[in-house]
Amino acid sequence: MTVQPVSATRPFPFSAIVGQEEMKRALLLTAVDPSIGGVLVFGDRGTGKSTAVRALPALLPPIEAAEGCAVSSPTAAEAPAWSGAGRRVVKKPTPVVDLPLGTTEDRVTGALDVERALTKGETAFRPGLLAQANRGYLYIDEVNLLEDHIVDLLLDVAQSGENAVERDGLSVRHPARFVLVGSGNPEEGELRPQLLDRFGLSVEVASPPTIEERVEVVRRRDAFERDRAAFLRKWSARDGKARAGVMRARAALGGIGTPDEALRDGAALCLHVGADGLRGELTLLRAARALAALEGEARITRAHIRTIAPSALRHRLRRDPLDEAGSTARIERALTELWG
Amino acid sequence: MTVQPVSATRPFPFSAIVGQEEMKRALLLTAVDPSIGGVLVFGDRGTGKSTAVRALPALLPPIEAAEGCAVSSPTAAEAPAWSGAGRRVVKKPTPVVDLPLGTTEDRVTGALDVERALTKGETAFRPGLLAQANRGYLYIDEVNLLEDHIVDLLLDVAQSGENAVERDGLSVRHPARFVLVGSGNPEEGELRPQLLDRFGLSVEVASPPTIEERVEVVRRRDAFERDRAAFLRKWSARDGKARAGVMRARAALGGIGTPDEALRDGAALCLHVGADGLRGELTLLRAARALAALEGEARITRAHIRTIAPSALRHRLRRDPLDEAGSTARIERALTELWG
Amino acid sequence: MTVQPVSATRPFPFSAIVGQEEMKRALLLTAVDPSIGGVLVFGDRGTGKSTAVRALPALLPPIEAAEGCAVSSPTAAEAPAWSGAGRRVVKKPTPVVDLPLGTTEDRVTGALDVERALTKGETAFRPGLLAQANRGYLYIDEVNLLEDHIVDLLLDVAQSGENAVERDGLSVRHPARFVLVGSGNPEEGELRPQLLDRFGLSVEVASPPTIEERVEVVRRRDAFERDRAAFLRKWSARDGKARAGVMRARAALGGIGTPDEALRDGAALCLHVGADGLRGELTLLRAARALAALEGEARITRAHIRTIAPSALRHRLRRDPLDEAGSTARIERALTELWG
Amino acid sequence: MTVQPVSATRPFPFSAIVGQEEMKRALLLTAVDPSIGGVLVFGDRGTGKSTAVRALPALLPPIEAAEGCAVSSPTAAEAPAWSGAGRRVVKKPTPVVDLPLGTTEDRVTGALDVERALTKGETAFRPGLLAQANRGYLYIDEVNLLEDHIVDLLLDVAQSGENAVERDGLSVRHPARFVLVGSGNPEEGELRPQLLDRFGLSVEVASPPTIEERVEVVRRRDAFERDRAAFLRKWSARDGKARAGVMRARAALGGIGTPDEALRDGAALCLHVGADGLRGELTLLRAARALAALEGEARITRAHIRTIAPSALRHRLRRDPLDEAGSTARIERALTELWG
Amino acid sequence: MTVQPVSATRPFPFSAIVGQEEMKRALLLTAVDPSIGGVLVFGDRGTGKSTAVRALPALLPPIEAAEGCAVSSPTAAEAPAWSGAGRRVVKKPTPVVDLPLGTTEDRVTGALDVERALTKGETAFRPGLLAQANRGYLYIDEVNLLEDHIVDLLLDVAQSGENAVERDGLSVRHPARFVLVGSGNPEEGELRPQLLDRFGLSVEVASPPTIEERVEVVRRRDAFERDRAAFLRKWSARDGKARAGVMRARAALGGIGTPDEALRDGAALCLHVGADGLRGELTLLRAARALAALEGEARITRAHIRTIAPSALRHRLRRDPLDEAGSTARIERALTELWG
Amino acid sequence: MTVQPVSATRPFPFSAIVGQEEMKRALLLTAVDPSIGGVLVFGDRGTGKSTAVRALPALLPPIEAAEGCAVSSPTAAEAPAWSGAGRRVVKKPTPVVDLPLGTTEDRVTGALDVERALTKGETAFRPGLLAQANRGYLYIDEVNLLEDHIVDLLLDVAQSGENAVERDGLSVRHPARFVLVGSGNPEEGELRPQLLDRFGLSVEVASPPTIEERVEVVRRRDAFERDRAAFLRKWSARDGKARAGVMRARAALGGIGTPDEALRDGAALCLHVGADGLRGELTLLRAARALAALEGEARITRAHIRTIAPSALRHRLRRDPLDEAGSTARIERALTELWG
Repeated sequence: MTVQPVSATRPFPFSAIVGQEEMKRALLLTAVDPSIGGVLVFGDRGTGKSTAVRALPALLPPIEAAEGCAVSSPTAAEAPAWSGAGRRVVKKPTPVVDLPLGTTEDRVTGALDVERALTKGETAFRPGLLAQANRGYLYIDEVNLLEDHIVDLLLDVAQSGENAVERDGLSVRHPARFVLVGSGNPEEGELRPQLLDRFGLSVEVASPPTIEERVEVVRRRDAFERDRAAFLRKWSARDGKARAGVMRARAALGGIGTPDEALRDGAALCLHVGADGLRGELTLLRAARALAALEGEARITRAHIRTIAPSALRHRLRRDPLDEAGSTARIERALTELWG
Repeated sequence: MTVQPVSATRPFPFSAIVGQEEMKRALLLTAVDPSIGGVLVFGDRGTGKSTAVRALPALLPPIEAAEGCAVSSPTAAEAPAWSGAGRRVVKKPTPVVDLPLGTTEDRVTGALDVERALTKGETAFRPGLLAQANRGYLYIDEVNLLEDHIVDLLLDVAQSGENAVERDGLSVRHPARFVLVGSGNPEEGELRPQLLDRFGLSVEVASPPTIEERVEVVRRRDAFERDRAAFLRKWSARDGKARAGVMRARAALGGIGTPDEALRDGAALCLHVGADGLRGELTLLRAARALAALEGEARITRAHIRTIAPSALRHRLRRDPLDEAGSTARIERALTELWG
Repeated sequence: MTVQPVSATRPFPFSAIVGQEEMKRALLLTAVDPSIGGVLVFGDRGTGKSTAVRALPALLPPIEAAEGCAVSSPTAAEAPAWSGAGRRVVKKPTPVVDLPLGTTEDRVTGALDVERALTKGETAFRPGLLAQANRGYLYIDEVNLLEDHIVDLLLDVAQSGENAVERDGLSVRHPARFVLVGSGNPEEGELRPQLLDRFGLSVEVASPPTIEERVEVVRRRDAFERDRAAFLRKWSARDGKARAGVMRARAALGGIGTPDEALRDGAALCLHVGADGLRGELTLLRAARALAALEGEARITRAHIRTIAPSALRHRLRRDPLDEAGSTARIERALTELWG
Repeated sequence: MTVQPVSATRPFPFSAIVGQEEMKRALLLTAVDPSIGGVLVFGDRGTGKSTAVRALPALLPPIEAAEGCAVSSPTAAEAPAWSGAGRRVVKKPTPVVDLPLGTTEDRVTGALDVERALTKGETAFRPGLLAQANRGYLYIDEVNLLEDHIVDLLLDVAQSGENAVERDGLSVRHPARFVLVGSGNPEEGELRPQLLDRFGLSVEVASPPTIEERVEVVRRRDAFERDRAAFLRKWSARDGKARAGVMRARAALGGIGTPDEALRDGAALCLHVGADGLRGELTLLRAARALAALEGEARITRAHIRTIAPSALRHRLRRDPLDEAGSTARIERALTELWG
Repeated sequence: MTVQPVSATRPFPFSAIVGQEEMKRALLLTAVDPSIGGVLVFGDRGTGKSTAVRALPALLPPIEAAEGCAVSSPTAAEAPAWSGAGRRVVKKPTPVVDLPLGTTEDRVTGALDVERALTKGETAFRPGLLAQANRGYLYIDEVNLLEDHIVDLLLDVAQSGENAVERDGLSVRHPARFVLVGSGNPEEGELRPQLLDRFGLSVEVASPPTIEERVEVVRRRDAFERDRAAFLRKWSARDGKARAGVMRARAALGGIGTPDEALRDGAALCLHVGADGLRGELTLLRAARALAALEGEARITRAHIRTIAPSALRHRLRRDPLDEAGSTARIERALTELWG
Repeated sequence: MTVQPVSATRPFPFSAIVGQEEMKRALLLTAVDPSIGGVLVFGDRGTGKSTAVRALPALLPPIEAAEGCAVSSPTAAEAPAWSGAGRRVVKKPTPVVDLPLGTTEDRVTGALDVERALTKGETAFRPGLLAQANRGYLYIDEVNLLEDHIVDLLLDVAQSGENAVERDGLSVRHPARFVLVGSGNPEEGELRPQLLDRFGLSVEVASPPTIEERVEVVRRRDAFERDRAAFLRKWSARDGKARAGVMRARAALGGIGTPDEALRDGAALCLHVGADGLRGELTLLRAARALAALEGEARITRAHIRTIAPSALRHRLRRDPLDEAGSTARIERALTELWG
């Protein structure tokens, strides 16, 4: 009896999402370079946040993994003994795993059966959500409502890239590298600064502002729900084109140039807006590089930095009691003041 | 020893409820199209909220299900091994299940007996209220007093349509699609916005405002309690007529037209009143369509949208600190401003 | 080893209670028609609240029940297998059961022994206070200090008339219909509105205001405690007369007329004072009918409604911030305004 | 291995306590008539409160009880099966039992060993402090710091005179009648009104106000601690005389007259000071009667009521926001206003 | 495997402590007469509080105890069966035991193994810190942060001089007489008055106010840590002299005279400063007597009372809202006002 | 299956850290003299705090320990029986152990398996993080968020240098001497004063203030992450040089002179700034001595004290409500006032 992803039905296509360009770009960038480090999506309910995340796997190239391996190890040689990995390497979809609110620690980290280990001498580890999410995405809806001890645990894993489970002196560890995608409504609870800092990019979403867009959203959604198969057929070509773009950008990423001006632009911008620490600057660099790759360009330009700055810095600004403008407005103003 | 619905005695007839038209209509619409997604009934105690819910099954056509199946699977083939389903398909009443305050998580989701599973190698799952409610109604009186962890659990199931129980690495999942009906008194505790958003429609009830109506309510209630059998005989024809209407509307639902004007009307109204997200707009569309079917018309008209707008949008308005009018008044005003 | 009522010694006689007429009448009315639904007694300590409740059984006719049955089933045929009911039907006193503060849920509802059920295949249910109280009275001193989870449980049972105990998939249910009598001091904690609403009648008690009454109370109490047997002999005739009145009223109850004017009077009064919902109106009707029966009259008159109105409505008034008068004063004023 | 009273060493003699006349009189009165119902001693630390209580048994006549009986049953016939009572009736000291703060419920009520009961078919009850205290005194130092659930339990037992232990459907009950003596410092936590009301008498103690008294207290205490045996020898005659007085008063108690004037005086006084309920009036009567017996008089006089009024009523006054005088002053003033 | 005192390495010598005369005197007095009842040391961190306590045993004469006895019983005859006491009486150092914050109740009182007791019929008691501390010192660093239930337990033991452990009807008790030494910083949490009152003496410590003293403290500490053996050799003679003084004072204690003037002086002083209760007066007497013994004098004089007054009374003053001076200042002022 | 340090990959080199001189110096000083007692690093996220700690082991000389010993005992003779120590003494890196937030007490202290101990008669101890950290570093990120009971435990161990685990009367103790390194953001929670006082040195870190520095940080970090091996090769010589300096300073430490002027300077400074207690003065002395050793000088000079004063005293100042300057500013001012 194995644990499976929550929903086995095919999701709404990524390409059929109306508007929400910043969110879609941020998700595509993490598909190009997962080391950008997670996306936080903030906004009202009913604006397509979870729709976009669930649509993502269809754009991602399959991964190669040892058949049946619970942590999706690339080869049987790298797979832990308890992972159930077979010899054969097979292709499988990039995992996208839901972490539901109210889940238990055991369910997240997996559980060690100490008794079995001691009496039978075998490693009795039942992998959890972190094992499932390895090499893929971990999605937390209403991340701002997550319990503190689960947040502690995720912070620990996000930093080390490993999941370490210890009980009564036994221990198991396995790689747990994934892109964390969280969504939430900031009015219903703030995120702890430590967790906020773990997200590479943050985006804001809102209901569409025009009747035309709203009608289009409702029309597509109604069509999808009344005849799912027909709708998916209609949009499969567009999703395929998007996937091809991601794969091209991944291949190009290593060769993208990083001119000194780009580094100085990033540092100048971060100093100007007052971003906490240097993690924002590093993320800005990486996201700009992935954007250049996605746009088929050879090097990072100031335009890339401009485009990505709000997503990379918005959640890292120090509170300035004298400046009542929101984070996004402060970044836009800084961009204008620096570079016109 | 099997779990049974709380009250085996026959309830007060739906048709004998005096007044409370909005509540009765909302319940009938979910009978026509369960995907409308639940009804929230807000108002004082003693206004017939639970009476109406308990009266509902008498209006619903029976469902076909594998005999004895704990989750009411349509056929034995679709039934889980542990469900006790027999080969024969039988008709049975649409389930209406009470979720009492203070219930345990195990009681709601069902419980996995890990020991038995390990020692005997069989899936030892004892289904809970969610299994019972599948394909029917789940009723929560005083839903605003429900404990947070039960709310989390219901939100999770309401979104996925599945109940997933996991313990110590074992897991069972079964379909859990039901119409959630909640009632409560808003003065005694607010609903969490996430739960509020899950309800398709919301209605307000109040004590009857005239002596005549009050006397009629008390007279019928007193008659019912003094001679239940006679009272039920008297009202059975009316209930039968209502049930026939529901069945006719269900058959017609797939063929109801959705003109572009209806879509635009819905979007214009939602923008005008400032409804959060797009879920209100989708619900408005579906409820208007079910109303058209119930009224025997061929397509959605503006009149349907007008009628259903307060129920579909009332609980989704953003707080507007400058507008002191209540939600209902704001919607009525918007309707007048838009369409006279 | 069986559970017994708390005090086996004979209590102070009902008829020997000095004054406190409203409380005594309310208790007698529930003896005539238990469906009136409970009495709430509010007032200072040392005013004879618990004395009156403990004195009540002596006024109640014995009930007929299957011998030894733990839930006092009328016949062996209706008795659950685990109830220990014998074939013979015997007469026994109406049960009056104390629910002490700080009691456990198991003690109230009874406990299911799952292990025994599974290993021996027999229903292992140990009945609790709710079983004991079936067909009688359940008394809660300081009801306003009761823990919330016990209140939840009582509300659930009070509504369904059944006690349902479920554990690990096993379930037992038995009838649990009783008159709830609660006493408390409102200064020491408010009652939850849901529980307040469950009580049909509420009465206020206070220390006697004159030296003569006080001396009489102390004299009788001192006499009772110094020579209990003599005191009981002295008052037995008065108690017997009261019991006869209750039995006569019970027999007459079904034939009491309910003129339309009585219904209209009740509705007009409830509208005038602003009572929440319609439960007050129904209670007013039933209590007036029981009062008519107790007074040997043929139908409900306005005088009955007048007499019973404070007890039936006092605890159901909406708070009116502009009206500083207490609940009782507001009802008295409404009665004068309506009917002079 | 049996449970024993905390301190086996001989205590400071009652007669050697300097001053504190009100406290000593209240304790003596409960020795004459235990139905007066407990003494509450309020005051600073180091004023001899616990010294007086521990000195009390030496003044009490021995009780007759079945040998070895855990609840001190008067005869073997009245003793429960589990009490270990032998045939012989022996004399033993009146029990004085300490109830320490932080004690467990099991320790207070005794514990039922269900497993042993079920497997061996014998009543496996281990008696607790309430069994030990039966027919004697239960002393609680810092009673205002007692945990709520222990208070609930004591209130229940104090009212019924029985200790009822139930677990998993088994039950044991035994008589638990004792005089409750509590001491505390009101500045460190208030007593719950229900518990306050359970104490028949309350007294206030304070450090001696003169150098002479203080020197005498310290001198006696120092002498006691330096040579306990010599000190006890010196004071044994005085203690013997006091004990004789108590025994004489007990014998006389039944014959003390209760003139109507005494009843009217008590009622007038209670009305005048505004004492809650009638329990104060009853206590005043009983304590005055015991005082008359102790003083060798034939009937209750106004002088007895005057003397005992502060102790009997001080803790039962309603708060009067317009009267800033303390409880004792209000009673003294009322006595003067009534009787000069 | 036996429990041992926390630190086995030899501590900093008592005599090498620079300044802090009041603290050193208070500790020496409890060495002379343990019935003085504990020392409370209040002051900043880093002022040598725990250093002084840990240095104390080197000044105390060894005790004679049955070999291996867990409660240090003087002879095998007095030792409990479970104590492991051998026949031989040996000399061993006065125990000084640490009670760490966060410790468990079992660890403090010792634990009863009921199962073993029942199945094997032997008393299975594992002694705790209270057993270890018998006849010695119990030290609690940051005593103001101790958990309430541990404080309750210590108060109970401190009063009775016995440790009574009861579980499931079994009980063990053993003598637990020790001098309680607590240290803490009053700014980080107040002591409960009951615990405060248990300490016989209280002293205040502060960082040395002059450069010379500070340099000397640091120089000695640095020398001690760099070459412990050499440092201990250097100070051993001084510690030996102090120990001889303590032994001489112990022998003289019984013969010290207590003139009436000393008693009157103590009472006058306590009345003047407004000390709560009489425990302060008793402590003043005993500490003055021990001081006289330590100074080799024949009787208590006013000078002794003057010297010891701040330590004995400082923590027992009633708060006086009109007197803003600290406790120490109020005592000094009273001394001047009384005796110039 | 053995517990291993969290990250097995090679960390960022110590020498490649840009700026942050105070933090680097403090860490180097503890490498020279671990008795200085821990470093507390306060500042914003993303300023390289954890990078520096993880880089530290590469600068530390290897330690010699019994092969396989769980507490790194220097020789097999000193190793506990349960430690798994072999005969051979091997060199191994100085341990640096992470203590994650949310960890359990068992995980920190190790766990005693009482059952195994009793049934098999062997000491069944599974060592924890404290055993691992012996003779090395224990690192706590976000130390200000650590749970209180873990803090209690660390304070206890830090004071005694031993880890004592006791359960049910069994006990194990082992040396646990380590340098505690904590990091945190003071805005997110204050440290308890007791824990604050345990840290020898405290340093403040901040984001680099100039574009040049920021670009350099990002450039190095990006280079490290893109080609780790090349980056490590490039910086290995610098790290080697730093390690040599530490080893030289360790050898010289014992011979560094401590002139009286240095002692007086320290005392004068501490008095002037108002540092709590004398621990600051001792730390100042030791850190100045280690600094002299690291700089290759023969004795402590005033310059050493000046340099180290902010780190040694900053976290020990008493709050001065009249002095609004920060701790660092107050120390700098004191230095100027004293010595110009």
